Amino acid sequence: MKKTKYICEKGLPFDEVGAKICFPLIKKIYFKKSKYQKIEIFDLKFWGKALYLDGVLQTTKRDEFIYHETIAHSALFSHNKPEKVLIIGGGDGGTVKEVIKHKQVKEIILCELDGEVIKASQKYLSEISKKAWQDKRLKIIIKDGKELIKNYLNYFDVIILDLPDPSENAKSLISNSFYRAVKNALAKNGIISVQSESLTNQIGLASLINRNLKKVFKFVRLQRVCIPSYQAGEFSLTLASDFNLDSIKIESLRKKSKGFDLKYYSPEIHFSSKILPLYLKQKIGE
Amino acid sequence: MKKTKYICEKGLPFDEVGAKICFPLIKKIYFKKSKYQKIEIFDLKFWGKALYLDGVLQTTKRDEFIYHETIAHSALFSHNKPEKVLIIGGGDGGTVKEVIKHKQVKEIILCELDGEVIKASQKYLSEISKKAWQDKRLKIIIKDGKELIKNYLNYFDVIILDLPDPSENAKSLISNSFYRAVKNALAKNGIISVQSESLTNQIGLASLINRNLKKVFKFVRLQRVCIPSYQAGEFSLTLASDFNLDSIKIESLRKKSKGFDLKYYSPEIHFSSKILPLYLKQKIGE
Repeated sequence: MKKTKYICEKGLPFDEVGAKICFPLIKKIYFKKSKYQKIEIFDLKFWGKALYLDGVLQTTKRDEFIYHETIAHSALFSHNKPEKVLIIGGGDGGTVKEVIKHKQVKEIILCELDGEVIKASQKYLSEISKKAWQDKRLKIIIKDGKELIKNYLNYFDVIILDLPDPSENAKSLISNSFYRAVKNALAKNGIISVQSESLTNQIGLASLINRNLKKVFKFVRLQRVCIPSYQAGEFSLTLASDFNLDSIKIESLRKKSKGFDLKYYSPEIHFSSKILPLYLKQKIGE
Repeated sequence: MKKTKYICEKGLPFDEVGAKICFPLIKKIYFKKSKYQKIEIFDLKFWGKALYLDGVLQTTKRDEFIYHETIAHSALFSHNKPEKVLIIGGGDGGTVKEVIKHKQVKEIILCELDGEVIKASQKYLSEISKKAWQDKRLKIIIKDGKELIKNYLNYFDVIILDLPDPSENAKSLISNSFYRAVKNALAKNGIISVQSESLTNQIGLASLINRNLKKVFKFVRLQRVCIPSYQAGEFSLTLASDFNLDSIKIESLRKKSKGFDLKYYSPEIHFSSKILPLYLKQKIGE
């Protein structure tokens, strides 16, 4: 019998617990060293196609919907009338795939720094993006999100920060000043949805994001998500807004989400994911 | 710089996704091949002392409270007057440590098949059991739980099945007939609390437990728990009873749990952990 090969994630940036997760490998499908990072796509046994950036797993076919449904729908359903959506990062197309399910949305801008991620995803990860790239409402801009955001004032209803871990020397995308620029680009009652890291492995980083968001937005609501392919533990995605996120009623979410094709997100999950156990509240400083 | 050594879990029994989790090792503390299994205790970096049975991680100092608080308190707080408690398995003492926090409880029987697990835990895992072994209400019986349970009729208020994964050929502790024997040993309005496996890695096994419990008990309520040291994914613990578990009010749990020293379990978590996303409902057959 052939011995199973495993692909093990290298240590996460800002990792505090040193756990490693390994997946059974079928084969490597793609490799490129772009201007910004090492891009790899593997075919994993059980998990399907998987994207790694600089050795850190971003998404797998098997469980991508958990991350992408939460980051997109928790914000879009919380907004009264989401018409203009900006995604910063998200080059795999998974978030776009969820956003396009909202018929109300008229304009989607995907701003990705690294065009090579989009190219690779379009070619090899269509199981994750599905019809995202064909949607007529989508405009792709290859640019640093920090630059693009300066061009907009009171414009977007929802901004999704679908970003990888910040590199050791580049915490600028989780800084106060970036969040302030994001807030300026939001229209009235706009909502942002943020990849806010692992509460198990990167609690220092997750707390920093939480603190910085709180300096800029009146309402910051962290959501627990269990994403099996991410390293051991509790993962988080966060909503932030000056709009009162606690005023949202479950009946309203039920009405809005009726008929949507969803496997993870639901109005019930929307609320239950906000309940933190004491040990996580203490860690995050809430 | 010395290279970090890792200890990787061997494949779980009934594993369906082939992910492996590895932890940074400081040193091996204990090893014994008992009559039933290979018992190992390691000191892990970040995670502290950890117990492995037959190569499968049972508990670590860092996150044991998540499992033990949930399996003990979700049942004990759901019961009106828990006085007699039986734990089958649980040789590490972590569940006993939680049960003794309930002053109402008058009698605790710990029935563990493998006395060597208790001996090793008493010697090396006192950070997990704390004062459990000194509690005067506790009686330890070294015996097969299937045998012990036959001696009791309408006796226990709460029975906790704190069992490791069943071995390939020994599913008898998750069978209908065992659950029926457990039910016979329960007093009126008694509740059982069951380790019901990973919803990510062992969904076949988790579904089987769920189906079998439903054949025997009127109310079966699965709870999602994220236990970081367990392999990638969603873990579950289940309550089952003929008593209406849905009749429990949050106010009652708040009143009962006031003043308890808890880091994970709370009345809010009690309810939110029962909310399943659609994909898990479908997997488990709910």
